Amino acid sequence: MNDLASTVPNGLFIGVGVGPGDPELLTLKAYRAIQHADVICYLENESGQSQSLDIAVEALKDPIKQQLHLGVRFAMSRERVAANAAYDKAIGQIHAQLKQGKTVVFLCEGDPLFFGSFTYLLERLDSQYASKVIPGIPAFAAATAELQLPLTVLKQSFAVITGRHSDAKIKAALLEHDAVVIMKAGIERPRLLTLLKETKRFDDANYLEYISRDKQKIIRDLNDLEMSAGPYFSLFVITRQEIPKEANQDVKA
Amino acid sequence: MNDLASTVPNGLFIGVGVGPGDPELLTLKAYRAIQHADVICYLENESGQSQSLDIAVEALKDPIKQQLHLGVRFAMSRERVAANAAYDKAIGQIHAQLKQGKTVVFLCEGDPLFFGSFTYLLERLDSQYASKVIPGIPAFAAATAELQLPLTVLKQSFAVITGRHSDAKIKAALLEHDAVVIMKAGIERPRLLTLLKETKRFDDANYLEYISRDKQKIIRDLNDLEMSAGPYFSLFVITRQEIPKEANQDVKA
Repeated sequence: MNDLASTVPNGLFIGVGVGPGDPELLTLKAYRAIQHADVICYLENESGQSQSLDIAVEALKDPIKQQLHLGVRFAMSRERVAANAAYDKAIGQIHAQLKQGKTVVFLCEGDPLFFGSFTYLLERLDSQYASKVIPGIPAFAAATAELQLPLTVLKQSFAVITGRHSDAKIKAALLEHDAVVIMKAGIERPRLLTLLKETKRFDDANYLEYISRDKQKIIRDLNDLEMSAGPYFSLFVITRQEIPKEANQDVKA
Repeated sequence: MNDLASTVPNGLFIGVGVGPGDPELLTLKAYRAIQHADVICYLENESGQSQSLDIAVEALKDPIKQQLHLGVRFAMSRERVAANAAYDKAIGQIHAQLKQGKTVVFLCEGDPLFFGSFTYLLERLDSQYASKVIPGIPAFAAATAELQLPLTVLKQSFAVITGRHSDAKIKAALLEHDAVVIMKAGIERPRLLTLLKETKRFDDANYLEYISRDKQKIIRDLNDLEMSAGPYFSLFVITRQEIPKEANQDVKA
């Protein structure tokens, strides 16, 4: 480092939640942060596609195309070694931008700190750089909005688990809590359907895929759901609400 | 009803989440729904003050003042009889507007279906009227963003309980789940602090009041918190994160 470099003000790293899919579910704060950022960073798959970037581009239209893009190539995998290598590489590129005093936003589907990859970048961030987080609409909130189904009222409790949990953990949550959301449900769908039956929560459950996106699918009667694996972006919403599911007319959001 | 009335198209009732306090945390969708509504409905206290209206007015500035306002006078109370009477009266006023084909938005702090009063209006809504829900940023997401603290990663589980729950229920959640949010914590603060100690989660906990508002208060070391009641808008965020709380610099949001 030379003297010149040390006079450049340090950059700012911002985790920005862009919500679950509908570009209108960005907050005003997220919109402006993306608009004013020097560098837009996001995860992309091996084909160069990025769901979070797609959401941001659709929300902001043209302006976002003029900023520097930093795609972090990332294979969806349970392999921690490969994932860690990708995050290590990404944070190196981000540090290089922050060192030049740039503001870097990292786009996150849903909320950055709720089951988000942003966590792995934040824990790698050099403490000399400032950071902040802009919350986003979590998928379960968009799901209950689509279902028009109250998740929790008064003394009810609510738990979030994932399809990666053990049978025992999932059953305990279904028996203990009035409302339960099971994230990352797709690949574990047959097992989860069995657990819902075993805990007598099958009739309390709704299943949603690709919430608030064009290919959104909502299944309110799980008898209509096949005992086979589904996509990654899917979840179950289980409630003890007494309100009949058909009480109010649905309006396409 | 006469023939003329039946030719008027039915109105639309929309529950709109305005987030926990910062007007910039409104979604683009909420912003536009409020902007285009005929009638703005909200809860107000006995002094005519409404937190959700304040947030919306600050976000939208002038335009909102030109719409019809429908304040539902509502004393903060655990008395179900008084609350039910207020909701009954409110839905009557809302039905009168919907009958005239108006679009009525009901402003909700945080998310409409997550511990929200909107639920009680939705269950009273006459099924002849269409409804929809626009999700909002829940207080816990704004809290973790302010703390820059990952709530859940990988196989962690997460539960939301309230200060209204029994000791047994709260202790079970603290022991069973990695991350726990305790909502409506203020009035029960001394009891909750004791339960956090008993379950050895005291050091894992952060306390926040009036999140994302001007009078926001964050306490990361609970030894600094008095064993006395606090305000209604307060919560505990408990995590098992290994990331040191001081790892990254905070930037005032």
